[in-house]
Amino acid sequence: MKCEIISVGSEMLTPFRQDTNSLYLTEKLNEIGVNVAFKTIVGDRRKDVVSAMHAALARADIVILMGGLGPTEDDLTREAVAEALSITMRRDATQVAALHARAASWRITMPPNNLKQADVLDGATLLPNANGSAPGQWLDTTFSGYRKLITLLPGPPHECRPMFDAECLPRLRQMAPARAIAVRTLKAAMIPESQADKLIAPIYTTYTDVETTLLAHTGDLQITLLCSKPTAEAAQRRVDDLAERIEEALEGWLYSSQGDSLEQIVLYYLGLRQATLAVAESCTGGLVAQRITSVPGASRSFLGGAVVYSDALKTELAGVPAELIAQHGAVSAEVAQALAVGIRSICGATLGLGVTGIAGPTGGTESKPVGLVHFAVADAEGAGILERTFRGDRTRIREWAAQQALDLVRKRLA
Amino acid sequence: MKCEIISVGSEMLTPFRQDTNSLYLTEKLNEIGVNVAFKTIVGDRRKDVVSAMHAALARADIVILMGGLGPTEDDLTREAVAEALSITMRRDATQVAALHARAASWRITMPPNNLKQADVLDGATLLPNANGSAPGQWLDTTFSGYRKLITLLPGPPHECRPMFDAECLPRLRQMAPARAIAVRTLKAAMIPESQADKLIAPIYTTYTDVETTLLAHTGDLQITLLCSKPTAEAAQRRVDDLAERIEEALEGWLYSSQGDSLEQIVLYYLGLRQATLAVAESCTGGLVAQRITSVPGASRSFLGGAVVYSDALKTELAGVPAELIAQHGAVSAEVAQALAVGIRSICGATLGLGVTGIAGPTGGTESKPVGLVHFAVADAEGAGILERTFRGDRTRIREWAAQQALDLVRKRLA
Repeated sequence: MKCEIISVGSEMLTPFRQDTNSLYLTEKLNEIGVNVAFKTIVGDRRKDVVSAMHAALARADIVILMGGLGPTEDDLTREAVAEALSITMRRDATQVAALHARAASWRITMPPNNLKQADVLDGATLLPNANGSAPGQWLDTTFSGYRKLITLLPGPPHECRPMFDAECLPRLRQMAPARAIAVRTLKAAMIPESQADKLIAPIYTTYTDVETTLLAHTGDLQITLLCSKPTAEAAQRRVDDLAERIEEALEGWLYSSQGDSLEQIVLYYLGLRQATLAVAESCTGGLVAQRITSVPGASRSFLGGAVVYSDALKTELAGVPAELIAQHGAVSAEVAQALAVGIRSICGATLGLGVTGIAGPTGGTESKPVGLVHFAVADAEGAGILERTFRGDRTRIREWAAQQALDLVRKRLA
Repeated sequence: MKCEIISVGSEMLTPFRQDTNSLYLTEKLNEIGVNVAFKTIVGDRRKDVVSAMHAALARADIVILMGGLGPTEDDLTREAVAEALSITMRRDATQVAALHARAASWRITMPPNNLKQADVLDGATLLPNANGSAPGQWLDTTFSGYRKLITLLPGPPHECRPMFDAECLPRLRQMAPARAIAVRTLKAAMIPESQADKLIAPIYTTYTDVETTLLAHTGDLQITLLCSKPTAEAAQRRVDDLAERIEEALEGWLYSSQGDSLEQIVLYYLGLRQATLAVAESCTGGLVAQRITSVPGASRSFLGGAVVYSDALKTELAGVPAELIAQHGAVSAEVAQALAVGIRSICGATLGLGVTGIAGPTGGTESKPVGLVHFAVADAEGAGILERTFRGDRTRIREWAAQQALDLVRKRLA
């Protein structure tokens, strides 16, 4: 069964607000085997809500509308749904009494426009609102020969979510065919999305019952596998089966088959090897350290390090000989290596990481362009080095460099 | 002119991801007088993208599609738009060559499926992508007798947003009715949103022709003022007038009245005073350094510093006497002060910043709870200290601490 969520409210069409209720609803819907196929955000204009409703009726079996159920002139969801379905509304006497009682308990006279909250779509059931005045509505109907489940929920999260849990989920669970969903997230580093897809598309396209989604961001590739089956075991088996084949195909690049972040994996390996890490960062300016220390418990394996932005600090904090910088330049394999070796020794760490590069937008030359970054990882045996040139703006180059640095440490440990 | 934004990507129909590009685009569209009337989110299914496109063509003059332009089997936006418009596509030879060149620069053989990125809708103009391989498309066409402006943008924000700014905005500005909009963004640090609103609501509510929006995030408050008038001068005058009154009301908290980030302001003051800064971070783990170095040209005033996660490194890299740590504990005003004084002296900086605290989730005690952070800023005269306790999870505590640290440096310089 396909579901569409329609969020009604002009504030969600500004640059400043986003609908977040739909994320909550989606999680709950997925758990009972219902997929969200469309989300629509529409303002408080009756014509537009009617249009959104028409589109949803044409393509979804379950339509959930949120917002526009209050008492103000802007609240038009009830009217728009009635228009889209060509049905009428009746004013519910019990609800009118409840609104009067509520106003009395607040010791105010009820404004007449409040009464529209007692208008019920023909054939709909009112859903009690434990946290506000606007009741929801549930309508199990037929439109153009197809069965449609339509529900109207209030917009405020503390009204919408409890009502959905208490009133909609149990009803939907009865309607939805009993299905279980299994999800797994695999993660790979530093492989271009197209190259990864070339390797794994021949595999995942044969799993037509598993929905595979690739998502790439500055050297981080996330592959999500989702499968819906009558039983949890059957769904999990298909997802695990495909995951295993993708793991093989992406060996070397794949760093997690359980959705962990790269920094979590680096810390995991450090713990496993009873090793510690120290870093000396130039162009990444603390980004590598910040990512590692974002993980709870990082202090068990991460000692710290230096942000050596100036040349003098490369010498002072990481022990890079000033002559080496003078001879090769601050952005060089030699200095990256000296940073790794130096910070490792000064901090007494098992592994030392050195990163030096040109993040831009200025500072590039013909031979050392913006985006050039040298990396080194040192251990007791010596240092391994890597040179990469990244494209993009300062933010992107720094993010790529931090990702590459962490991946280099991971590979040294794996 | 009504605009609809369609975000294509199955990941945005999961509980885990949200489209954020549309907020950016909406801001820019509003500035040229274009309102967003609908936003639709649809998965990577051709049939569904065609359905979304049909709905949009029926109700919007401008349709902006984001995502689904990459090289993978999932990337179906081009094909779906062609189907919805009943038009064909041609393979662009220049684009094919560019894709080959790009692959060569990455030193990989181009996978054949990459070539679909060279497919162009009949009548469309290709939009160059400065930050990725998938070009955008711009189509000025007629559908069912109405003029429609259709644009296809890549999904990744660093590709989507610059392309929109460079290629779409100038084209749309020509189409949109002449209208002057003035916008100003004020920024304040470390003031609770409710406190700020209590101070400024009596002011901004009297400016009924200026739309005022408050947005708060971990100690950073953004106040956006937007005014639309027949002339640019009239709009600017009202915005500036209100901005001046808000500046007065929030004196001390307000750090920018032109939308700059706190790290930009810190670097601005450092430059103005011809001063340099070095930092020694414990619980923020590089977050402060990372924020400062994210600003181009940071190296002029920021020397670097140390991430002193372990106690030994506090001594080794920032010169904190081991006895001081033993006596007062690593999280103490004394150690924060010693970090600031030590890193300043070691780095030869005008100002030294020390941050030490408990980010959690573990490590808290009765007397030193999770969230407790000590700060110090040292100059030639000595060190000023500050103690704060923040609430929330590890991420929030670290973000609050980094924001407070930067604000402390700003106040010392201002």
